Amino acid sequence: MPASKTAKPPARIQILAPAPMIDCGRFASKRCVGDTVAVSADIFSDGHDVLRAVVRFQAPGSKRWQEAPLRRIDAHIDGDRWAGAFEVTELGRYTWTIEAWIEPFAGWRDELRRKVEAGQADLSGELSEGVVLLEQAAKRCKGADRERIAAALSVLADAGATADDRHAAALDTALQDAVERHPDRSSSTVCEQRLQTDVDPVRARFGAWYELFPRSWGGLPGVRDHVPELAELGFDVLYLPPIHPIGLTNRKGPNNALAAAAGDAGSPWAIGDQTGGHTALHSDLGTMEDFDALVAVAGEHGIDIALDFAIQCSADHPWLTEHPEWFNHRPDGTLKYAENPPKKYQDIYNVNWDCEDWRGLWDALLEVVRFWADRGVKVFRVDNPHTKPVAFWEWLIAKLRAEHADIVFLAEAFTRAAMMKMLAKAGFNQSYTYFTWKSSKWELTDYVTELASSGMQEYYRPNFFVNTPDILTEELQVGGPPKFASRLVLAATLSPSYGVYSGFEHFERVPVRPGSEEYDHSEKYEIKQRALDGPLMTLISRLNAIRRENPALQRLDNIQFLGTENEALIAYAKRTGENTVISVVTLDPANAQEGVVVVPYSLGLPPVFTVTDLLSAESFEWRMGRNFVRLDPYRVAHLLRVA
Amino acid sequence: MPASKTAKPPARIQILAPAPMIDCGRFASKRCVGDTVAVSADIFSDGHDVLRAVVRFQAPGSKRWQEAPLRRIDAHIDGDRWAGAFEVTELGRYTWTIEAWIEPFAGWRDELRRKVEAGQADLSGELSEGVVLLEQAAKRCKGADRERIAAALSVLADAGATADDRHAAALDTALQDAVERHPDRSSSTVCEQRLQTDVDPVRARFGAWYELFPRSWGGLPGVRDHVPELAELGFDVLYLPPIHPIGLTNRKGPNNALAAAAGDAGSPWAIGDQTGGHTALHSDLGTMEDFDALVAVAGEHGIDIALDFAIQCSADHPWLTEHPEWFNHRPDGTLKYAENPPKKYQDIYNVNWDCEDWRGLWDALLEVVRFWADRGVKVFRVDNPHTKPVAFWEWLIAKLRAEHADIVFLAEAFTRAAMMKMLAKAGFNQSYTYFTWKSSKWELTDYVTELASSGMQEYYRPNFFVNTPDILTEELQVGGPPKFASRLVLAATLSPSYGVYSGFEHFERVPVRPGSEEYDHSEKYEIKQRALDGPLMTLISRLNAIRRENPALQRLDNIQFLGTENEALIAYAKRTGENTVISVVTLDPANAQEGVVVVPYSLGLPPVFTVTDLLSAESFEWRMGRNFVRLDPYRVAHLLRVA
Repeated sequence: MPASKTAKPPARIQILAPAPMIDCGRFASKRCVGDTVAVSADIFSDGHDVLRAVVRFQAPGSKRWQEAPLRRIDAHIDGDRWAGAFEVTELGRYTWTIEAWIEPFAGWRDELRRKVEAGQADLSGELSEGVVLLEQAAKRCKGADRERIAAALSVLADAGATADDRHAAALDTALQDAVERHPDRSSSTVCEQRLQTDVDPVRARFGAWYELFPRSWGGLPGVRDHVPELAELGFDVLYLPPIHPIGLTNRKGPNNALAAAAGDAGSPWAIGDQTGGHTALHSDLGTMEDFDALVAVAGEHGIDIALDFAIQCSADHPWLTEHPEWFNHRPDGTLKYAENPPKKYQDIYNVNWDCEDWRGLWDALLEVVRFWADRGVKVFRVDNPHTKPVAFWEWLIAKLRAEHADIVFLAEAFTRAAMMKMLAKAGFNQSYTYFTWKSSKWELTDYVTELASSGMQEYYRPNFFVNTPDILTEELQVGGPPKFASRLVLAATLSPSYGVYSGFEHFERVPVRPGSEEYDHSEKYEIKQRALDGPLMTLISRLNAIRRENPALQRLDNIQFLGTENEALIAYAKRTGENTVISVVTLDPANAQEGVVVVPYSLGLPPVFTVTDLLSAESFEWRMGRNFVRLDPYRVAHLLRVA
Repeated sequence: MPASKTAKPPARIQILAPAPMIDCGRFASKRCVGDTVAVSADIFSDGHDVLRAVVRFQAPGSKRWQEAPLRRIDAHIDGDRWAGAFEVTELGRYTWTIEAWIEPFAGWRDELRRKVEAGQADLSGELSEGVVLLEQAAKRCKGADRERIAAALSVLADAGATADDRHAAALDTALQDAVERHPDRSSSTVCEQRLQTDVDPVRARFGAWYELFPRSWGGLPGVRDHVPELAELGFDVLYLPPIHPIGLTNRKGPNNALAAAAGDAGSPWAIGDQTGGHTALHSDLGTMEDFDALVAVAGEHGIDIALDFAIQCSADHPWLTEHPEWFNHRPDGTLKYAENPPKKYQDIYNVNWDCEDWRGLWDALLEVVRFWADRGVKVFRVDNPHTKPVAFWEWLIAKLRAEHADIVFLAEAFTRAAMMKMLAKAGFNQSYTYFTWKSSKWELTDYVTELASSGMQEYYRPNFFVNTPDILTEELQVGGPPKFASRLVLAATLSPSYGVYSGFEHFERVPVRPGSEEYDHSEKYEIKQRALDGPLMTLISRLNAIRRENPALQRLDNIQFLGTENEALIAYAKRTGENTVISVVTLDPANAQEGVVVVPYSLGLPPVFTVTDLLSAESFEWRMGRNFVRLDPYRVAHLLRVA
């Protein structure tokens, strides 16, 4: 007998399928400060008892349990789904669970009401049961509630009261409220799972990123000088590829040439030389003081500096001699450079995660991130995290979060979906996506729907980069400026976080060879002369302003795709509170495309309403149903704010 | 550091989302003897290591772990889903989990192959690594495998061997097979969940049920006399409503009249009088010897006797006086009869599950079921289980299963879906369904799809009763004989288990009043004269034979709905091995209906094939694509076996 050692029979309430729950509670869901956690569960019991339920939650570091009510959602297909919410206001890990109990007075009252309404004659037996329940409730409270219960009891005990008087006293809703404010929860049922929600800064969800190689901008002082302009353009995060010393041994030349010529700059991802490794600065970029000044100026302008965390070493990295035991060796004792046969990466050595001193290696890597975090870096873009152990990331991110709860880790993993999801579950606050390769309306709709509503929205926060130093898509190579504009609007309006790698605004689109996504004369291997004067910067700046002014564009889970009756036109609405933005973007900006935007009833808009195009400032009368649209190479999108 | 106490770093393999898993492993999935358990999981690691995985399982009562391989399903969208299966051959609870490990030799071999194919020159460093792996493998095996590995090692060590010789020796697939037969699993990863699968007799999934009130058939001896004919008609289970003494106090009269007249039979669900309760027989039905004889004769004819387990007592049940503490009382000490206000059930007393002696009550109820199980009853149809505690059912069914692993419990719960599912998860082997109220093509398709492929198929086994003593649907009332035939074919071909309550074959369809689903002069309150001579019995018998001859009709999870281009025609294919049956049924049998059956490519049939109608014995040439069909009141269905 399951509970043979206890006086009471086993719990009669079932609490199943709590949400959000990721892998049976193994991982935490994610929110940002100020968000709400919408909680739900199947809650039911045998028989006809009336149930009550709450979500109970602990803020980070707090022992105190707070709670918020759950209510049955009658519209749910099963009829036994309950839902509620609590707000998260502090950075860190919240713990929560669900508790439910039987409210016998509510059940008794409901039965009495039905009998009274059916005109049943003698209900004295029923009332005698109510007296017992009320007497128990009175013992649990004091003050006004106790007085109200006592008053009801005195009517029920009054020999002179009529049956109608007694029924009215027993069915008084204020009486029920008084009783329910003091429930007997001694036999309540608590959900088996203790669930967790990690609360991050808003930056983890929403931001416009700009990526630049400092060596093309006059080093760290030059970058610092551009900060005010970047802030003016509306960027929130300035992401710098590795700023550390670059190895000389086996240095790659322009266009990834096997041998560098004298004076070739090398790839910043071949980290380390005799002057230092992951905690050193490339001497050409500036001093640690220059770095601190950049972080400080950026902070004054509301911009976060994002550093690149790439766990790999050049042949000249100090660790190769100080800690050869951390690297892969052949049986003859020689070190092994990185390979993905038949490709060879002779300028890079990967660490050996299975080495005996793995603890020393993990600690050293933690020290690297801690070093920069202690200097004020709040954002880390992690290079290829999917080729490192997941357990390492889970440990490292938890360690850093304990010291700096406002840090954001962006996972640069372009690999199979299960691993990309896994890294987000393990703690990465934001993730690169497949966006660059989603071109057609079907692909975009399907992919964004998965990100926004398949369950991924609970833990996976996308960052839609339009390009990267590694990714110049064929679409951009052949589509030219209108395609650049179209992809830019898609990224900035589909995803709360999006990014641009310097050069995009100049329409840079020459590949190293046909069929390659690598840039010709990639900045990865060469120093360029850069400035913020690209012709697309006006649109970028306008989009950044629009994103800041419209809360609806700062979320992903509020998206609803709309019909257009044209495969070359994609439309979607986002709504947050009173703010509704309908985006219409052409996927074929080389040609004029006409279609409609179908505004469904479910969007909750009036039959006729005014929309203002936030790009052109024009206004239109729109209506529920079909609305004509036309886009062409000179106008690739409407961003329509509903008045 | 997560594993700071161990010498090795934490596991690098992730095993997520194992299936079948019900509520995070809280409940067991279900299979029948001879079934396979198709197991799958997301299995992946960082980097490029080659993984191997198995499902490990223990048969009921066995300490021995057996295993079956899992393989990566490359077609899966994530690319990291692995799948495999094991067969269950014994009744009882299987335990299983998933284990995965890195196979370093396979990874090394794959890299070597790619380098050889790319024509890379000096691979001696690579080969030296292979030697280490082969030497380790050799230590793990003996016999032919060890000899094969030793032979390869000698080629690799032979100074006279050419590079081609060495590469060929290293890449030999027989060598790889030999190494992989002896993997190093000392660092393997085991799935966090220990999962369970309950294995039942095939009867739990497949069977034709016939329900009759013994008092209308000459008592237990009369029923026994009908057994050979019932077997001839193809029934597998004979379900008897309660056969116990019926209370006299407050006995209900015909048509549920509040007061019975002298001689009125009463409802069999008002259990118990001064002669006994749940372990006694109604004296009019026969003796315990008659009962034993019925069970024995049924067994000889391959028929299971199903008893009704209804936990409620008439006013005259011995428990009311022997154990008044098991029942609900008012504060004045009087017993409370059952109510669902404003409805009153004055002839029935429910037990009080929250009483102090709940253990005594549970034990007494267990003794009731055990009493009949010990007399050879293998099937229990449980009345209204949703108004009793789930924990009680989980305990009772587990107790009985431990003594009689071949017992089948059918849950008669018509309530909200969450509770119906819950009872199945708690252990009920079979469940009533909403089938009787699913009329339209959309409703039937949607509901059966949910049962067959939403995850419910792992634990919820439907029994499609066409009618019950409580359910005479409006559809039958107005549809007449053709509708009876249509509903019969749907039940018998959609669900592996289906049931008929006596009278259906006579087209009984007069309700007690308009709008009611109760029969006029229901057999629940009156004795009838019954025989197996209803005009629909010919079709029932034919359907039962067809179901036995076609394994495809004995499963639910193999169903695929087919287009018909007519809302009044529903079509579905079931395929098991070489046996394919396409059913086409009219939902509007009052009129002729024409349409097509669209045979899709995915059904795996040849472009042109012959089908034989198992009802009419006609044959037709069918083809992939659209096939004309016409059904009318005289032919309500085609059951087409593909040749």
